[in-house]
Amino acid sequence: MLKYPDAQVISLGIGDTTEPIPDVITSAMAKRSYALSTLEGYSGYGAEQGEKQLRAAITSTFYRDLGIGEEDIFVSDGAKCDISRLQVVFGSDVTMAVQDPSYPAYVDSSVIMGQTGQFQQDIGKYAKIQYMKCTPENGFFPDLSTVARTDIIFFCSPNNPTGSAATREQLTRLVKFAKDNGSIIVYDSAYAMYMSDDNPQSIFEIPGAREVALETSSFSKYAGFTGVRLGWTVVPKELLFADGSPVAKDFNRIVCTCFNGASNIAQAGALACLSPEGLSAMHEVIGFYKENTKIIVDTFSSLGFKVYGGKNAPYVWVHFPGRSSWDVFSEILGKTHVVTTPGSGFGPAGEGFIRVSAFGHRNNILEACKRFKQLYK
Amino acid sequence: MLKYPDAQVISLGIGDTTEPIPDVITSAMAKRSYALSTLEGYSGYGAEQGEKQLRAAITSTFYRDLGIGEEDIFVSDGAKCDISRLQVVFGSDVTMAVQDPSYPAYVDSSVIMGQTGQFQQDIGKYAKIQYMKCTPENGFFPDLSTVARTDIIFFCSPNNPTGSAATREQLTRLVKFAKDNGSIIVYDSAYAMYMSDDNPQSIFEIPGAREVALETSSFSKYAGFTGVRLGWTVVPKELLFADGSPVAKDFNRIVCTCFNGASNIAQAGALACLSPEGLSAMHEVIGFYKENTKIIVDTFSSLGFKVYGGKNAPYVWVHFPGRSSWDVFSEILGKTHVVTTPGSGFGPAGEGFIRVSAFGHRNNILEACKRFKQLYK
Repeated sequence: MLKYPDAQVISLGIGDTTEPIPDVITSAMAKRSYALSTLEGYSGYGAEQGEKQLRAAITSTFYRDLGIGEEDIFVSDGAKCDISRLQVVFGSDVTMAVQDPSYPAYVDSSVIMGQTGQFQQDIGKYAKIQYMKCTPENGFFPDLSTVARTDIIFFCSPNNPTGSAATREQLTRLVKFAKDNGSIIVYDSAYAMYMSDDNPQSIFEIPGAREVALETSSFSKYAGFTGVRLGWTVVPKELLFADGSPVAKDFNRIVCTCFNGASNIAQAGALACLSPEGLSAMHEVIGFYKENTKIIVDTFSSLGFKVYGGKNAPYVWVHFPGRSSWDVFSEILGKTHVVTTPGSGFGPAGEGFIRVSAFGHRNNILEACKRFKQLYK
Repeated sequence: MLKYPDAQVISLGIGDTTEPIPDVITSAMAKRSYALSTLEGYSGYGAEQGEKQLRAAITSTFYRDLGIGEEDIFVSDGAKCDISRLQVVFGSDVTMAVQDPSYPAYVDSSVIMGQTGQFQQDIGKYAKIQYMKCTPENGFFPDLSTVARTDIIFFCSPNNPTGSAATREQLTRLVKFAKDNGSIIVYDSAYAMYMSDDNPQSIFEIPGAREVALETSSFSKYAGFTGVRLGWTVVPKELLFADGSPVAKDFNRIVCTCFNGASNIAQAGALACLSPEGLSAMHEVIGFYKENTKIIVDTFSSLGFKVYGGKNAPYVWVHFPGRSSWDVFSEILGKTHVVTTPGSGFGPAGEGFIRVSAFGHRNNILEACKRFKQLYK
């Protein structure tokens, strides 16, 4: 901005939603707000785990026939916040594995809890974390035979940043791996509704997953709730620590001690999201971003780049073999004034890639793609 | 409820707000909700530290001329949540002191972070925590000459549960004590607006406090936001760890990693709270609860009980010398069907007291007091 004060910068960087929230959802939040001014409609402290009706709606919308009950759902102010609360449950003495590359919050929260060793500058990794390499060579699914046993496995599918989604067969292997090792999978499904392929949208579609996995998700990217703040975590009652005590019991204690429930207004919005009208409105918003994704994929493909992701997630993962992510990022920013994200920011295996987010107004996406074409033609 | 299925139970227990939120505040939240459906009014991720305008309004409303800048304010989803985030900053290797009795979240979050030793059943205390006894004998302000040095001192004034508020002279001693010991005070001022006496409403009214204290507060009890969720924490830039690094830098890292900002709709509500109309509406709500408090104080006083608190906080602390808190609680519940809180639940020095909350509809307060009079006449 200092260098080119007149530049029209377009951000396809941090993946922040840009499209208005459908009326049916904001009307419900406004209605709940107004109701709080009435004797009948006022409510104070709610259940820390979330309102019963919302927990039931999340269960029936996302986990029907998967053996998940509404008592397994913990409503929250977002997946990122729940990831940290989970880390507080796990404490500082656990070992963890992450996909490499992956959403930085897993590693950052692990560092903060003191689970890791020092950062090793030369390899770009924290000691004591297992980095599960996900690259085009392995179809973005880690070679589990090379991964050491850990207590916790963070796994995000569809993945941020690679945009790839694990298949049923791959997730079945992951669940078996966790079961064999006595590991707990923290499955992040925040982009599940972006799936086009017939891959599982929840880890609980895999038999046996309830004994080894919990799942976190969010309305942020489905309904533009990045600012409204509403997510949830599923902790199945079958998920036990090695001593036989339920993980849900400890998570419940953390939720009740360290959190006081999500905003009742945001919860009213989430409930509206799951009404028939809300679901169809959410699908429209998601469809819009998916069209953006296709425009970005087609642009880079037409320029001869190897492009990954984009089909099952709102992120496009573009390969610049042999180049540094930061150099490519700077080149694109300097020459097109479009902000992307350097792949190495998500882990060492992200080196040589950039992530392009599909969250943006259509005219910005089209303009950015026009500039990409001028740069790389 | 099982024993007396037809009983009209009145809860003056957990201190949950009951009165509707003033229109001027809910209208602002509804307006923000609707705006999220428009291109111009939509916003996604906000600053994790809160919206600039709200941070400025909090500064000018509560900390004018106290040397606090808007950059020192961290907006949150509530004081309880911030207390836990602070504990994550402090980690498991610190020692802490609490008022005895006090709001249970301080000790509970300390236990969860692993700061304490085992619970000692015989004395009702966790090992490694300094319990600072606050009783009628010391005017509910601890005898600091008997308190061992700790890294962290939790201090709530006006106090929950005793309802007592520390004087300027007492807080000056507390600040000196912290400075002499190199301790950090976590000052909880969530009830400051209930103050009738001319005591400080913020620890930062005490000279030198910015070097030893941070402060957490909330709109929960001011505007009935227990369900809406909006609070804040002040971390002055002058507050440093022993190695000279700012506490605010670490807290900011936790806020950015473990939290994604408070709901934008709740923030719009908070901003409305701090408008001239909002402030006057909040004072009305607070005034209503203060009238409730007076009714409860007068009732127990007229029955010959020694009654504490109530003047500077919405809690009445009633003494039943020589009796067990739980016995009194059970007697009141069984015979009047009014829920109170046994004082020993707030710490061993709460034994022999019950806390009566003034949050309730007027008819319930009057009815509860009528029943108290029948029981103890």
